[in-house]
This record gives sequence, C-alpha cells and structure tokens, in this order.
Amino acid sequence: MHQLLPRDLRDAIRTIPDYPKPGVMFRDITTLLGDAGAFRRAVDELVHPYAGGKADKVAGIEARGFILGGAVAHQLSAGFVPIRKKGKLPHKTVRVSYLLEYGEDEIEMHADALVKGERVILVDDLIATGGTALAAVKLLRQIGAEVIAACFVIDLPELRGADKLRDAGLEVRTLMSFEGH
Amino acid sequence: MHQLLPRDLRDAIRTIPDYPKPGVMFRDITTLLGDAGAFRRAVDELVHPYAGGKADKVAGIEARGFILGGAVAHQLSAGFVPIRKKGKLPHKTVRVSYLLEYGEDEIEMHADALVKGERVILVDDLIATGGTALAAVKLLRQIGAEVIAACFVIDLPELRGADKLRDAGLEVRTLMSFEGH
Repeated sequence: MHQLLPRDLRDAIRTIPDYPKPGVMFRDITTLLGDAGAFRRAVDELVHPYAGGKADKVAGIEARGFILGGAVAHQLSAGFVPIRKKGKLPHKTVRVSYLLEYGEDEIEMHADALVKGERVILVDDLIATGGTALAAVKLLRQIGAEVIAACFVIDLPELRGADKLRDAGLEVRTLMSFEGH
Repeated sequence: MHQLLPRDLRDAIRTIPDYPKPGVMFRDITTLLGDAGAFRRAVDELVHPYAGGKADKVAGIEARGFILGGAVAHQLSAGFVPIRKKGKLPHKTVRVSYLLEYGEDEIEMHADALVKGERVILVDDLIATGGTALAAVKLLRQIGAEVIAACFVIDLPELRGADKLRDAGLEVRTLMSFEGH
C-alpha cells in the first residue's frame, strides 16, 4: 500500500546505521532533496491527488517538514502554515503538548494561521511513532481546520504512526516504507 | 533598488512591535506564507531571473529559509540543500562559526551536498546584519560551489547585511525593505 514509486526514488534515501544511537537505522532524506529530479517527483507524487484547489493550506512540521511543505504548498498553489517548536512564533499561538520517548514536548501554531473550515494538508518527511503528527492534527482541528490528508515521504510501519493517524480518521499518504528503525 | 512588487505584497508582512525585545519591530513573514497568492508571487518574483536551468541547487538556511527554499527549489526544478544549526545533520558535515550579537554560533552542511562547480542560490526569508548568510556563503564556497545569488524576501537595509554580501562579490536579490529594526 502506498508504494507508488519506482525503485530509484527509494534509492535516493540514504541509510545511516547507528544514528543517532546504536541500533537505529536513520533514513536520511537530504540525498533525495538534493537530487533535483527525485525531489520534484517526490513532491508531485505525494500530493497530486490534492491538486486543483482541493487544499487551501499546507501545514509543515519544523524543521524538515518545512522544506517539503514549502515545495508542496508551491506545487498546490496553497498557503503555508508553520507548526513550530514552542517559543519560535512571534504572534498569538495555540499549542499542544505530546509525549516523547522520555518526557514531553510542545508544538505551536499561530492562532490566526487558519480560519474555521479551511482544508489543510499536513506534511512531514517521515512518520515514525506519529506523536508529533497527531499533536499537529489536534492543533489544526482545534482551530476548526479540516485536515484532508497527512502526507509523508517515508513510513516506518513497525512504529505504527500511520495506523494511529488513520485511527484518528485521517487519510494518510506515504511514498515508501522501510522495515527496521 | 529591488523594490519589484506592488504595494499589496508588502502589506502581506505583519509587523510585531517590541518582539523579541523592546524597541525591535519584528517583520513576520508567516502572514505572507499563509496567503496562497502572495506566497506564490513572492517565490516567483524572487527567483525568476534564475529560471531555465541557471541553478543546480538551492541552499536554505534553517528554519524559515527551509520554507521558501523548498518552494524555490521546486519552482526552479533544482535540488535543495539544508544549511542547519550544528548537530542536526546525520552525515559528515562541513561547518563554520560566526559571531552573534553576544557570543557565536555554528552552522553546517553535509560535505557531499554539493560538488565543485555546482551553481547554487542561497535563500532565506530576511537579511539583517548578514552574519548567518555570510557564514552560509563561506560554507558553500568552501566546498567549491558557485554561489550565483543570495535571495531574501525582506531586507533591513539599516543593518547593512545586503551590502556586506555584495562586498563579498554576491548578487543579492530582495523583494522589499523596511526601515527600523
């Protein structure tokens, strides 16, 4: 499911063993981003179902989600909404906290970044446990946006983040998945 | 110079007085990014001189430069290179330190993000004193890239960052400038 792309786009991802800690296979998307053809194809494949005015805005999660989100917003002629770590946005925000492996964190968004009923696509590079993405969806729904899809280049299905998003009623779109994490 | 745009794009910028500290007029670009038409026009106006294969890659500075940089790379069908705060990139990096108002900071880039002779455009949302941008140019030149231009939506000319970049031999392109900072 959602394995939409030919082998070579998958090969544009670099795997770094034991980063950031022993036993983790880090999937590095910078090699895909740096390849003009792969970057364009990834963006286009990721969001072509939402072309033609189906989305008003694209919300990107700091920091790598900003790169893809900016490109996706441009591709769809939509506005872009940054979802940031706390304390980075200058105006009035809404915020939500979520659990990390150890402790918790907060993300926030400008309270006037979206108006009720706007259709938004959430974008990030990778979905793992889904903690941040679920928090972002909560934030978007809190201000009345309609989250029409959550899009990620990479899925780590063993960590079940995409399943959790689907359980929350979301359409989830990913381009490739990797076993091992 | 470089005041290319009609009044309304400039009006898409929100000014927040006394942020992050008293006396500073913070120019908030999120209102421009969130406006689909303004975002698209800003991206297009910023880099149309480099369309048609003139740039191989677009380098964006973390974090707001990732949003514009991702969109610009997509617009130009170029690859994207993230320039990040230290410790965020998973593979072998090159790094450079630069002075802040108090103390210093470091930025880094993957050492294999560009090959010698590649033509790159540097993108960020705003140019102020130019410290980070100059450090980014140094990093790009260090690995042999040809920096063909540095593009910013907003210039704060009183802080002379754009002048410093021009002194370093760069073509600088900005869309609007604000007095007061």
